[in-house]
Amino acid sequence: MKNIELCLSPEMLHLFDLKDKTVVVVDILRATSCMTTAFANGIQSIIPVKEIEECKALQSQGYLAAAERAGEKVDGFELDNSPFSYMNPELKGKTIAMTTTNGTKAITESANASEVIIGSFLNISTVADYLLQKQQDVLILCSGWKGEVSMEDTLFGGALLEKSDTHFIFANDAARLASSAYKVAKKDIKEYMGNCSHFQRLTKLGRLKDIDFCFTEDLYTVIPVLSGKELVKK
Amino acid sequence: MKNIELCLSPEMLHLFDLKDKTVVVVDILRATSCMTTAFANGIQSIIPVKEIEECKALQSQGYLAAAERAGEKVDGFELDNSPFSYMNPELKGKTIAMTTTNGTKAITESANASEVIIGSFLNISTVADYLLQKQQDVLILCSGWKGEVSMEDTLFGGALLEKSDTHFIFANDAARLASSAYKVAKKDIKEYMGNCSHFQRLTKLGRLKDIDFCFTEDLYTVIPVLSGKELVKK
Repeated sequence: MKNIELCLSPEMLHLFDLKDKTVVVVDILRATSCMTTAFANGIQSIIPVKEIEECKALQSQGYLAAAERAGEKVDGFELDNSPFSYMNPELKGKTIAMTTTNGTKAITESANASEVIIGSFLNISTVADYLLQKQQDVLILCSGWKGEVSMEDTLFGGALLEKSDTHFIFANDAARLASSAYKVAKKDIKEYMGNCSHFQRLTKLGRLKDIDFCFTEDLYTVIPVLSGKELVKK
Repeated sequence: MKNIELCLSPEMLHLFDLKDKTVVVVDILRATSCMTTAFANGIQSIIPVKEIEECKALQSQGYLAAAERAGEKVDGFELDNSPFSYMNPELKGKTIAMTTTNGTKAITESANASEVIIGSFLNISTVADYLLQKQQDVLILCSGWKGEVSMEDTLFGGALLEKSDTHFIFANDAARLASSAYKVAKKDIKEYMGNCSHFQRLTKLGRLKDIDFCFTEDLYTVIPVLSGKELVKK
């Protein structure tokens, strides 16, 4: 059996050897939910970048550009970090440059893995099936919030682990921790999330509809995958 | 109400502002369990140091010295990292220089907090009562294992949070995570710990008696506290 590990924050990513591993990057609220939605709605590719300046440079080369910091759209960019923004039929076939507070950083920092794929509740069963079929060691990388642990990414980790538990060895304590938290939370995940940091932050910003959407399981069957510097549909 | 936060690993400690906070450092297997045991058995003070070289230098100044790496005693030092080693009546009134893989590092790195105290299952209720009476913001700092999250420290965090939950606001997602894991684990904490990394590591080293001891609640009522560069009895 292969190993599955979980990393609770990019601050700890340097402790993991990514060689010969599939990394599942997760930023439920909302970057990886947006990416899943984008590919399900026909977007051609996404270029994830860490810094706003890099995103601006790509915009000036003619790309559509999405930038979010602290939950809000950055002035001067076309797109924000709401999954509903990526359902627009006019975006079909387009390439989008994207920077977000946490998710795009996690993706760029795991680029030297064997493969980097994008996970969200929206495509969770498809991701689980893919990992099972691929049979390679896995690292679930939670994007967190500015380096800190975030509950929604951890709960996604726990949910993905639950779907994998008879097929993989849970290979670190963080995986066991995420798995236990999900056991407690799953009866009513939104009730459980009510006190959590980013849930409250987005609720204050009027983003309840986004939250509801991002916790919907298996709406889509696409898997975004990193190919060079771009995310494309697997 | 005051806030209580939890930091799952020293790798994330730089994200927390320690000013005006009481930090509870925890390394259940076994540094903070040893420290609690030492003070309960009459040891005068402990000088926690990060590096083996520093510990050797103190030893050459005449201090008794304890050094552990990867679960085993380092050659050339008097004491290891087993709580039973600190019950020796000959140690009464002595000062011990100590370095361990994780715990002493966590203590030295949190030295700029308002106050640094040592927590373990052995003194958990005394620590909880002290925090409640003191009414200052609290950070529970889990020492982890070489930067990674460790289950035993997280479960102690969850247990301490359970004793504090009506008196403090759980102020970060890591605290909520530890709390949920403890809810799952507490019915049979050793059964739950059976698969966890350091439990298995110490079991292989023949340290089951240490593990049993380190999970015993409320054997002692001492609180070790950092005063300058030394831990003393509060």
